[in-house]
Amino acid sequence: MSVNKQPLPVMHAVPGLRLAATCAGIKQEGRRDVVLMALDEGTQVAAVFTRNAFCAAPVYICRAHLSQSAPRYLLTNTGNANAGTGEPGMRDGLACCAAVAQAAGCATAAVLPFSTGVIGEPLPVEKITTAVPAVLAALGDDGWADAAHGILTTDTVPKGASLQVSIDGVLVTITGIAKGSGMIRPDMATMLAYIATDAQVAQPVLQACLEQAVARSFNRITVDGDTSTNDSCLLMATGRSALRIGQADGSAFEALCAAVSEVCKSLAQAIVCDGEGATKLITIDVQGGRNREECLQVAYAIAHSPLVKTAFFAADPNWGRILAVVGRAGLEDLDIDAVQLFLDDVCIVRDGGRALEYTEEAGQAVMDQDEINVCVVLGRGEACEQVWTCDLSYDYVRINAEYRT
Amino acid sequence: MSVNKQPLPVMHAVPGLRLAATCAGIKQEGRRDVVLMALDEGTQVAAVFTRNAFCAAPVYICRAHLSQSAPRYLLTNTGNANAGTGEPGMRDGLACCAAVAQAAGCATAAVLPFSTGVIGEPLPVEKITTAVPAVLAALGDDGWADAAHGILTTDTVPKGASLQVSIDGVLVTITGIAKGSGMIRPDMATMLAYIATDAQVAQPVLQACLEQAVARSFNRITVDGDTSTNDSCLLMATGRSALRIGQADGSAFEALCAAVSEVCKSLAQAIVCDGEGATKLITIDVQGGRNREECLQVAYAIAHSPLVKTAFFAADPNWGRILAVVGRAGLEDLDIDAVQLFLDDVCIVRDGGRALEYTEEAGQAVMDQDEINVCVVLGRGEACEQVWTCDLSYDYVRINAEYRT
Repeated sequence: MSVNKQPLPVMHAVPGLRLAATCAGIKQEGRRDVVLMALDEGTQVAAVFTRNAFCAAPVYICRAHLSQSAPRYLLTNTGNANAGTGEPGMRDGLACCAAVAQAAGCATAAVLPFSTGVIGEPLPVEKITTAVPAVLAALGDDGWADAAHGILTTDTVPKGASLQVSIDGVLVTITGIAKGSGMIRPDMATMLAYIATDAQVAQPVLQACLEQAVARSFNRITVDGDTSTNDSCLLMATGRSALRIGQADGSAFEALCAAVSEVCKSLAQAIVCDGEGATKLITIDVQGGRNREECLQVAYAIAHSPLVKTAFFAADPNWGRILAVVGRAGLEDLDIDAVQLFLDDVCIVRDGGRALEYTEEAGQAVMDQDEINVCVVLGRGEACEQVWTCDLSYDYVRINAEYRT
Repeated sequence: MSVNKQPLPVMHAVPGLRLAATCAGIKQEGRRDVVLMALDEGTQVAAVFTRNAFCAAPVYICRAHLSQSAPRYLLTNTGNANAGTGEPGMRDGLACCAAVAQAAGCATAAVLPFSTGVIGEPLPVEKITTAVPAVLAALGDDGWADAAHGILTTDTVPKGASLQVSIDGVLVTITGIAKGSGMIRPDMATMLAYIATDAQVAQPVLQACLEQAVARSFNRITVDGDTSTNDSCLLMATGRSALRIGQADGSAFEALCAAVSEVCKSLAQAIVCDGEGATKLITIDVQGGRNREECLQVAYAIAHSPLVKTAFFAADPNWGRILAVVGRAGLEDLDIDAVQLFLDDVCIVRDGGRALEYTEEAGQAVMDQDEINVCVVLGRGEACEQVWTCDLSYDYVRINAEYRT
């Protein structure tokens, strides 16, 4: 049922970062559900988290630990989000960190916890802590593929991206993994994404790089408009390569940002393609707006319309639904006669009605594709924006209706 | 698959208003798709229309005609919305009005056109004008049930409400019909609704009464968050009863408003119950907000979340999804520890986590019902608001994926 699911590419190791996954029995029998990442001393870490006011306990703990200590271990469990769990959730999350700290010989604050899965159930602390020794013993720098599997929940495929680029004559690796399939409208970061590089990058510079990359990737996708309580995205720089970037400007910084953005965009699109029940990848371009905000407003209104999304699922060029969404998106003084609508390069709407040259066959040919570009030209300015989404299918309903059964 | 579908109640005739429906062949063979209503001279008419910037041609024509003439005929066709049809759509809509005017012997501007159905297709003018003589000949004051059927599109049941109340010692009738099933998030009025009374009411007073009633009914429902291009709601007062209301205050005005609101609320809830694929009626109460706007913001965020709506379809008390929506609804400084969540009278969330007394069985018992009340207490003020919605089922996807096939 899904579109463009790519197998994992070659996942280049990032010197200075080791990782492993194991089965702790939180998800179904035989599925990996605990992932540990170990960072060499001196690794810099940048992070962005969900803007949802109902943050999960691990998000609170991550923020606190990041302010206290340099991170050495990242502990991820799937199958349980430790969200909506109140004070007991904080104790449970800390207990898992403490178990890693004790086994690894570091401070509890050097362990960052991440959880994803069902909301509102108590975290199965004992299952997780019991799994710690095994996952610690299995750490290796070739563990990316295992980890990519271990962080999944309703995802149907692991998501990874890996690049090697030469910056200032130094070969630098950027490798990342992500998970996310439902409850996807990141508003700072996607559900869980971990990206690492071996470049030497000062923490504020790394944070600037991550925020730039996230704005162009994870913050431009939506599956169902729901922002998770647990969204977290980390960028780690182990500093094991000879490339050193000390400032958030200059050509080396720009090159690193471009490479990290490329990895993030690739992971973000993989999330949309694996969106719950998705059969199509829809790119929505809104051009000619007065500012970027109103372009995003129109783009997200289209991306969230169940009527538009079911029409894409049915490969039905029912463009009237798209037009109706543009009209209700809340733009002041919208001159509908100035609006144009394209599916790929087929112009459908011009002068407030169907374009004279438009034929149903031309629209149908585009709708039959797996990847579709919707372009709305507002005709009232120079701003443009782009977001990615997927269609709404029977399987979306099935997956979410059966989620806890 | 649907909830609480009531048969049409007794539809009391409204003296001074006659109506009829006929088959013009726009929809499938044998389905009524043209409805005509005739208003006695002197009938006052109040109207509210969609706020969608892409208004359909009939909405433009209605506004123009209302400013030029007292309405005598209301012509509705289903199966084609005459929306996104540009200048030809205006000509087509006017041609239909002219056909009624010629046959009935009135001015074209005394005819108001209404269309609902597919967007972007040319209006089948000839089919409609050909049907005019038959529907004109069939007019009668007992045509409410026929008309209720004739205005339907994807609706599965006709929707009507009728009340007789005594105001100032005079028996007054209020009877109304509505259609709407998908593309439902009215933002002034529902798709199509016609309500009539035999009271004598001055036009500005009637308009005030309608706006008050709509705010409490049609503007508080949502099926899929999509606002139609054709939404129109009319309140007509034939003045044939002895009750005369000249001002928008006083006990008689309040009594009339209450009765009209009751009819509108009944029609609005019937639309939600017949929402595309709906199996449950969900009432969302948001209390303890700083103002009504933020209560509505939270209520609509819940009502539009596909994750919440699929959980209702599955009768899954997955309250974490509701909590996650409250958190992302965009309220500033939301103190999550002050938030409480109830399903009917079962308290699920208190102090930022699951209520101690909550049991999955108690939540399940509520979720198994056909009608469910979700109450969110924000704990930061005195304002409250209420909206109605339905769940998201396989049938929603089927109906909208197959809409044009």
